[in-house]
This record gives sequence, C-alpha cells and structure tokens, in this order.
Amino acid sequence: MSAKNQRKNYKLKQNWYSKNNRKAENRPQNSKQPKNKPRASVKAVKKPPVKVSFLGGLNEIGKNITVIECENDIVIVDCGMAFPDGDMLGVDLVIPDFTYIEQNVDRVRGIVLTHGHEDHIGGLPFLLSKVNVPLFGTPLTLGLVENKLREHSLINKAKLNVVNAGSTIRLGCMEIKFIHVNHSIPDAVAFAIKTPGGTLVHTGDFKIDCTPISGDTIDLSSFAKVGDEGVLALLAESTNAERAGYTPTEQMVSESLDGLFKKAEQYRIIIATFASNVNRVQQIINCAEKYGRKVAFSGRSMVNYMDVAGKLGYLHLPQNILIDIDALKKYEPNQVVLVTTGSQGEPMSALSRMAYSDHRKVMVGEGDFIIISANPIPGNEKSVGNIVDELLKRGCKVIYESMYEVHVSGHACQEELKLMHRLVRPKYFIPVHGEQKHLRKHAELAEFLGMKKKNICIADIGKTVEICDDHMKITGSVPAGKVFVDGLGVGDVGSIVLRDRKHLGQDGLIIIVASLDVYDGHVISGPDIVSRGFVYVRESEGLLDEVRKLALSILEDCAEKNIQEWGVIKNRLREEISKLISQRTRRSPMILPILQEV
Amino acid sequence: MSAKNQRKNYKLKQNWYSKNNRKAENRPQNSKQPKNKPRASVKAVKKPPVKVSFLGGLNEIGKNITVIECENDIVIVDCGMAFPDGDMLGVDLVIPDFTYIEQNVDRVRGIVLTHGHEDHIGGLPFLLSKVNVPLFGTPLTLGLVENKLREHSLINKAKLNVVNAGSTIRLGCMEIKFIHVNHSIPDAVAFAIKTPGGTLVHTGDFKIDCTPISGDTIDLSSFAKVGDEGVLALLAESTNAERAGYTPTEQMVSESLDGLFKKAEQYRIIIATFASNVNRVQQIINCAEKYGRKVAFSGRSMVNYMDVAGKLGYLHLPQNILIDIDALKKYEPNQVVLVTTGSQGEPMSALSRMAYSDHRKVMVGEGDFIIISANPIPGNEKSVGNIVDELLKRGCKVIYESMYEVHVSGHACQEELKLMHRLVRPKYFIPVHGEQKHLRKHAELAEFLGMKKKNICIADIGKTVEICDDHMKITGSVPAGKVFVDGLGVGDVGSIVLRDRKHLGQDGLIIIVASLDVYDGHVISGPDIVSRGFVYVRESEGLLDEVRKLALSILEDCAEKNIQEWGVIKNRLREEISKLISQRTRRSPMILPILQEV
Repeated sequence: MSAKNQRKNYKLKQNWYSKNNRKAENRPQNSKQPKNKPRASVKAVKKPPVKVSFLGGLNEIGKNITVIECENDIVIVDCGMAFPDGDMLGVDLVIPDFTYIEQNVDRVRGIVLTHGHEDHIGGLPFLLSKVNVPLFGTPLTLGLVENKLREHSLINKAKLNVVNAGSTIRLGCMEIKFIHVNHSIPDAVAFAIKTPGGTLVHTGDFKIDCTPISGDTIDLSSFAKVGDEGVLALLAESTNAERAGYTPTEQMVSESLDGLFKKAEQYRIIIATFASNVNRVQQIINCAEKYGRKVAFSGRSMVNYMDVAGKLGYLHLPQNILIDIDALKKYEPNQVVLVTTGSQGEPMSALSRMAYSDHRKVMVGEGDFIIISANPIPGNEKSVGNIVDELLKRGCKVIYESMYEVHVSGHACQEELKLMHRLVRPKYFIPVHGEQKHLRKHAELAEFLGMKKKNICIADIGKTVEICDDHMKITGSVPAGKVFVDGLGVGDVGSIVLRDRKHLGQDGLIIIVASLDVYDGHVISGPDIVSRGFVYVRESEGLLDEVRKLALSILEDCAEKNIQEWGVIKNRLREEISKLISQRTRRSPMILPILQEV
Repeated sequence: MSAKNQRKNYKLKQNWYSKNNRKAENRPQNSKQPKNKPRASVKAVKKPPVKVSFLGGLNEIGKNITVIECENDIVIVDCGMAFPDGDMLGVDLVIPDFTYIEQNVDRVRGIVLTHGHEDHIGGLPFLLSKVNVPLFGTPLTLGLVENKLREHSLINKAKLNVVNAGSTIRLGCMEIKFIHVNHSIPDAVAFAIKTPGGTLVHTGDFKIDCTPISGDTIDLSSFAKVGDEGVLALLAESTNAERAGYTPTEQMVSESLDGLFKKAEQYRIIIATFASNVNRVQQIINCAEKYGRKVAFSGRSMVNYMDVAGKLGYLHLPQNILIDIDALKKYEPNQVVLVTTGSQGEPMSALSRMAYSDHRKVMVGEGDFIIISANPIPGNEKSVGNIVDELLKRGCKVIYESMYEVHVSGHACQEELKLMHRLVRPKYFIPVHGEQKHLRKHAELAEFLGMKKKNICIADIGKTVEICDDHMKITGSVPAGKVFVDGLGVGDVGSIVLRDRKHLGQDGLIIIVASLDVYDGHVISGPDIVSRGFVYVRESEGLLDEVRKLALSILEDCAEKNIQEWGVIKNRLREEISKLISQRTRRSPMILPILQEV
C-alpha cells in the first residue's frame, strides 16, 4: 500500500469535540468581568480559590503535568514522561505518580493537552490504564496520542476529543480556550482556563515565530484579549529563561540547509533531527525537492511521526519524493536524502548504528555528508560527541556545530517571555517547566518586569498552590514523585533496587554458597565462591581462594560455637570478607552469602 | 606549624639538572643546518628517521603520552591519566598501556614533562612502579609529581631533575629545549626536540596570553628561533581547534571577579575552581586582599596544590590572609572567601557536599554568594547543573554562566594555533591532544594555512608515525589502550568485568542455588532464588515463586533424564528462566545458576 493510499484509508478515532460544544464557544465571554480597569478587584462576591498542584515539571526537565482545581472540578494539563538520569540504572522511562488523580478521579473532568511531545503526552498510557479520563487536544496531538494508545492496546476505550486551536471547551466549572502557539512541533496550544475563581493562563511550551514554516504566528491577539479581560495567574514555561534575546525563526534553518545542500552536491546527505519536528523535516523535504533528491526515513519513531503527520496533512510531500530505505541503493548517492533519528546520540538510534557500522541497511563512509540538525540536550553532549567522532573516523563530512545554524530552539527566550508577561498581565505568576535555575531566572525576569516578589511563587512537584484574588500561597502537598518504568514493570523498581543496581554496577559481587548440615551446622558442601563484575577471575584465583578459606573458617567456627541463626552467620561472612577484600583491593563488591540446609 | 614556616622548612627532592648539563646548553646550536632557505633540504647525508608513537592522547581526552625515538634513544613526552567515561563502571582512573615502554626500557633516556596537570603527569606513579626512568620538568611540575610519588611511596628511588624553562638538556642523541608557554597552570613548557633526524616541536598544552597573571608571555621568540632553524614536524595540541578567535587573557577574570566581590559585599563568598589553576586562585587572593577578606581553602586537592605552589613561590600570599577552614566561624560572613574544589560537579567534592548539606564544616544558605569559576568539561554539564540547582534551592546566589566571564580557557583557539604554525613553520604536522573532531579541525586549519594534505597525519593511539625529510607515514603499531585502575587493582578490570558490571547495573541478577544428590542428581536442597537489583522482592513473590518452580522442574527433569553435565543443566536453567522473566517483565537480569553436590 503506498503512502498516498494509506493516507486516504486512514481514519482518526477522534471525536470532533469542539463542533459538539459550540455552546461553550458561543457563550457570551467575559460577562462577569468589567472591561475597564481596575480589573480583578471585584470583591463583592467572594470567589472560590483556584488550586494548582504539580505532579511533575518543576525542578525537573520533562514529566509535565499540572492539576487545576476549582470548586468540585479538576482539569489536568498534560501528562508527560521524562527520560531517566544516568543514576537511574536500567530504567526505561520515568512517569509521574498518579495517586492524587486516582484518589480524585470522580472530580476529574478531563485532560487537556498542549502538544504532542513525549514530555507532555508520554505518561498518558500509564495513567489511562488506571483511570479512563477523557482527553482533549488538537488534531496532530491526538493523532500522536492515538498511536501511542494503540501500542498499549488502550485505544478502544480511550475518549479522544479533537479541539482546534481557537476553540473553547467547557469542563465542569471551567472554560478552556485553546490558543495557538509556535513550537518545535505543529499544532501546539496554550490554555486560558476561565474558572469561577479567576482566569489562569498556562502557556505550555511556546516560542514566538513571526515567520513560521507552517501555520500562523502564535495567536498574540488571543493572549492580549485574555489579558484585557483580566488574568489571575500565569503559568509560563521556563526552559530558555536563562537565554537573553529571541529564539530565531525556524526559517533560518531553511537558509542554512539550502547552503549545505549546495555544498554537498556530490554527496549522499544524511540529516538527523528530532522525529517530532515536523516543520524541520518539511524544510528538509523542500530542499530535497529543490535539489532533485529523493527522501527516505530511518528510525522507528521518525517513520511513525511522519506517518501521522502525513495522514493528518501536517507534512506536504511532493509526488513520488518519498522512497523506502531499501530503495536507497537504486539511486546515486547524490540523488537522495536520508532523514534519521539519533540526533541526541541515543545508543540504539539509527544514526548511532550507522556510526558504529551496526545499521542493517545503511553503511556510511567518505561519500556521506551528515548534518546533525539539533543541539544536544544537557547530559547528551558526550554521546553526541562520540557519534560525531565515529562518523569522522569513517571519513564522513559532519556538520554538527551550532555555527552552521542548522537548529533553532522551540522555546521562548527572555524577550519572548517578557512579551508573554506583558500580553497576559497576570496578577500572580508561577514559572513552570524547568529546573530550579530556570524557574529562578524566570522569576527574576518577572520581578524585573515590575511584579512584586510576593506575587511570584516558585513551587515544586508535590506542592499545591492556592490562588485567590488577595493571595497566592503554597497550602499543602499531594503525592508526587518519579515512578520508574522498566520493561513491563511500572513502579516495581524503587530506591532499594536502584541502590543495589548501582552497587553491583560499580563494584560487582561475590557470592558465597555453602550447604550446612541441618543437625550440627558443619559445612557439607562448599563454600563455593562465585564472582561477577569484580575482578577477572583467572587472574585473581589467589584472592578468591583466600576468600574461600576465610568463609570456611567462619562457617566452621560458627558450627563449633553452635551459632545457628543464619542472620548472624551471614553477617559475619559479609563483614569479614568485605574487610579482607577491601584490604587486598580497596574495593567493596556486594557480598552475598547463600546458605542451604541439607 | 604556620604556612610560612612550612615554606621555609620545605626542601624539594629535586636535582637541578640543567645546572649540571650546561654543556648541552652551551653547545653551538644549529651547527648542521644552514640558516638561509631552502631549509630542511640537506640531502647529502641520509638522516635517520624519527619515530613517534602515541600511547595516549589521540582520539581521546587526557592520558597524554608520546614516545619519540631516534637511532637508539627514546624520549617520552608526558605520562598522563584520564578520567573514566560513564560506561567504565566503578573504574577510578584510566592509565596508558606501558607495555611498549617496558619492552624498550633500555633505550628510554627519560620522560620530559610539559606541565603538572593530571592528564600529563597522572600516569607516572603507575609507570615508575614498573620502570624507574628519570624525569625532567620545571620546578612546579616536579613539585606536584613529588607529592604524587610520595603518596605512592615511590619518592625515594625516583630520579627527579629540575629544568627551568629556557634551558636545554641532552638525552641520548636528542637535545631538548624547554620553552615557556602560557596555560592554566604556571610553569608549563613546550619542547623543541632536536634529533639527528630533524627537529620536532611538541607544544604540550598552551595558550598565548600577552598579559598573564604571573610570569612571562609564552616565549614566542624561542618558537620563532626554532622555526628559523628548521622544524621537521610540529605536534600541537588541538583541544580548542573548533573555536574561532583567541582565548581571552586570564586578566579578564580579574575584572569580573572584582565586580562580583563588590556585588557580594554583604555575603560570604565561595568560589569553586580547578585546584591546579594557581593563577586563578592568585586572582581570588588578590581580590580578597583588596576587599579585606580572609581566605580559606576547602577540598583535599585544593589544599595540596596550594601547599606546593606556596612553597615553591608560585602563590603570593599577603601576610595573615590565609585562615584554616575551621576558623571561618570566627569571622563575619562578609569577611571571608572560601576557595573550593568541585567546579566540575564531582560527587565527592567539597562544593558538592556543601550543595547537598553533607559538608562537615560548611553549611550554605541565603548568606552565600557562590561563584563557579570554571566551565563544565563535556560530560559534566548535568552534574554541574544539579549542584547549581541544589545551591539555588538553599537560597544561595550562584554565578555560573559564562556571561560573567569568571573563567577563561587554558588552551589555544584557532588564531593562536595559526600563530604557532606560522612561528614554527614545520614541514610536517601531527595534531595531538584531542578527539577525532578536534584533530580533524586542526588538520583543516593547517591545510587552510597552506600545508599539503600529505604532510599532515591524523594518527591514533597505538600508531607509530615515521618522519623523514622526504616522507611522513604511519609505519606500524605498538601496544596501547586503556588500562583501568580500580582501587588497588591496575589492569585487573577488563572488558568482561565491565560487561558484567553493566549487565548487573542495568538489570540486576537472579541467583538459583540448589544442592543435588551426588549419586542421582535429584534436588536435595533448594532451589532457592535470590535476586538483587531486579525487582522489589516483596512485591514480586509470585514471579520469584514461578521461577523457583520452573527451576525445580528443570533440575528434576535433568535428573530423570540422567543429564549429569552441569554445563548443560546450567544452560537450560539460564535459557528457560530468562525466557520466563522476559515474558513476564520484558527485562533480562543476569541469571546465575549455582549447583552444589552433596
């Protein structure tokens, strides 16, 4: 089946929610609030407080999820995942603790999604497998969610409701306007959430791109209008709060790519970028068309994203430009462009496999011109650097520096953040999405713009912030934290397991096995010494022999003294053998005595 | 004993080699080579080739060591160590493979040291414990080496020979001139090595600082003179070969620090920097004096370095400015500066302990103004970021961005590298000290300067490059690689141990222990299942019970079928249990069957 036919046959399992909810949209907006200033000071009726609880996204990168409550209703903004840190050994991904949502599921009216990045939707399968809450998002976002839920066999019962940017929906006592923003994935939105306690604006991830590749500039006018109507609190992302100036337009990448395509006239071109960056891929396709090259995709997530984006019309593919990766060899190297995953140096990604000559279909070498169209996310610098080195060793040309302007950020820098604050003019401000340093910088920025320190709250995950007309404060805590997903297991890897993994990984282990006489405790078989990850055994037979002799003497001593509690015996084994090993090697492997009664 | 007295009583165990070797210095230089061009083209007498073998420092950062051979003589330049990568689990440090040196020790005339950084001297204790080769270095470099050898109880037999910058020594058929360079540690030198086969220039690490904090500007005139005399090959460092322009002068840091000291008037100041950066510490001390603050040092390596630098006169301490860290509490916060290690986010460093409230003597909080006067080395970005976040959470002011110019590099950028090439004007060029991308960039730079591609060689560790008047080529290999030091063990952790550590660290392990009847193979005791780092056992009893039952059925089946080879039985256990675990959890812990005969 061709890509074209696939697109035709594809039907989204999505309800066009906003069409059925026009009443919310047509409702006279802003009826309660006076248009003229002073705004937000109608104290006649005591308004209910709005409570905002953070289950993720503060003091961490990723795993964004915010719970907003007013009266008896809860609306959740996003439900993301995070990638594990280096010390979370063997963990595949990290999701939020959903306890608070499970405990209050009766009050949850829905989850509204800002965009389709993993750190905003990646936690959904794990939440929906526990509680089946309706989802609301733009077409591309829900298209990506759908794929994800299908993989987890959750698609049949899921309640997906498509809402276009510009529309307003009602969830319980809250009216939520979807406001178009620019970001590194199409169809991203911010939310203006009108509650009986006042209006909250949650920006999601955004930048201000006055010349976007596709779609419109961020809907400045809607932000301005919401600002005019009066905003109680702004929750704005802080990813680039440390960076001065403006994030450049995505268009800039076009010019750089064009120059590089010219330069690479004689080469096969391979470009690594984020699979979700549909506009970036669009630019690559545009360049490919201009220079008469075919385009192939490599990497599972790249193929998946392009599939959804293509079907939903977010990717414009000239006739016959796409070829299968298997068809690459039918063309001259300078007639093709390969678009691949792996821009972050991920060990199993397509680019990484190419670099280490481990890709089943693509061998790279002197005829290749490789562009890494992304910046390393903090923590990935080393692995990206290693891949660049490997590619260079194979004779490839590699474009990886930021000086070539083959990448721009999707997040607002300081000047854009300032504009957002000025448009929305909130009474209170909570910086979100960032580590402490980003949140602080964003708070300082708000202060610099004239906001009072007491009107700014740097919260934390697990905290509940209460916002009223006359105050904003942290009033309590909710369960929150990092739940580890390892294979099929969700939450069964905790701190003890991680501590053991770290110990085993750093120092290895020594196992002492012995069978003891059930009557007198004397050794019947063993002790046998097995070690893994400690020393190269063949070169350390002397040491392991010493360990065996020591273990035997301890066991026999215990038998002589009629010590029968295995806890005591094992402790002696652990302590004395640790001491011996430490003296001999200055290392501390895990010592694991296993005794059996015969 | 006060610091002052210590300095008086301190005697270096160093021979002032150059004094006894004036004959080399007084020898008429350059007698064989004509002053007028064309140089390096005297073909009347066939010169012997010069061989350069790299035991480290190419395609890697650190572990710099170069072996230079001519006729029957070997001179070694530097002997460094490297820090382990993230995948070298449990490894403390990485040293070169010294096999080639051991095999040719009879021909080794000495090791010449460019400067006292760990990546240039850190491997010495491990080499000297095998072969006692004489060392030649400047006073500070040998002072630091001496400390190191004392820790390893190698100081008594070591042959340390002090050579001042500007002096020339003779080692076998080679004459080696020590040429002063600027770097982020004082007393750094480059070498001009005059061999019967031609002159080599090895830059070591360098920058060009026209206004250094202490000492002179790099000895441009000596490089020019050597260039005039004719240089066969240049080996120049490539650390900053990707960076355009010039590395700023260390003086720039003074201005920034001054501004920050003013800003921090009401605070205690804590500055983290590299312990070896004596000039940086000098600037901090100068600022402290100006603003009437006392200075304390924190962190073992900081105290050690300052001790040696102070004793040898490289650190100028105003009367009574130094206080012990224990005396901090006797002063007002704004009367002190604490200079500490930990600028790279090292987990056990002083700054890290402060950030995580784990420092025995220093508690940080809102009264602290903390300056990180260093940039993160690639790979350390995340841990430095984490420490900044922790400090911010505790209310500290933290200066960490490069925008404050509280750090400058110690390595030459592109313009400085170009100058070095133009001064030395070598026939051949080998870029050294860097990963592939740095070496490539440096090679491109040389090409840009007009050098022919065939006169440039990107080598690799373990390669021998032969250099003659009429050619330069890779002619062979020598043993080289990464030797891991873990605790007291040198080289006993290899790829198998690391593979096991990685497996254990990622997935944990399951041990199956059983005692079998020596006669019929039936199970007498067990099988017992022990797991570590796999799942939280209390929540997974069902799964482990399944494993136990499966193991029992396999063992009994083997007994029934009279299978007696333990290899076969263990393989069945491993395979079938792996399969069960994978089905249930999609994980692959190490499966370790241990059988005992009773």
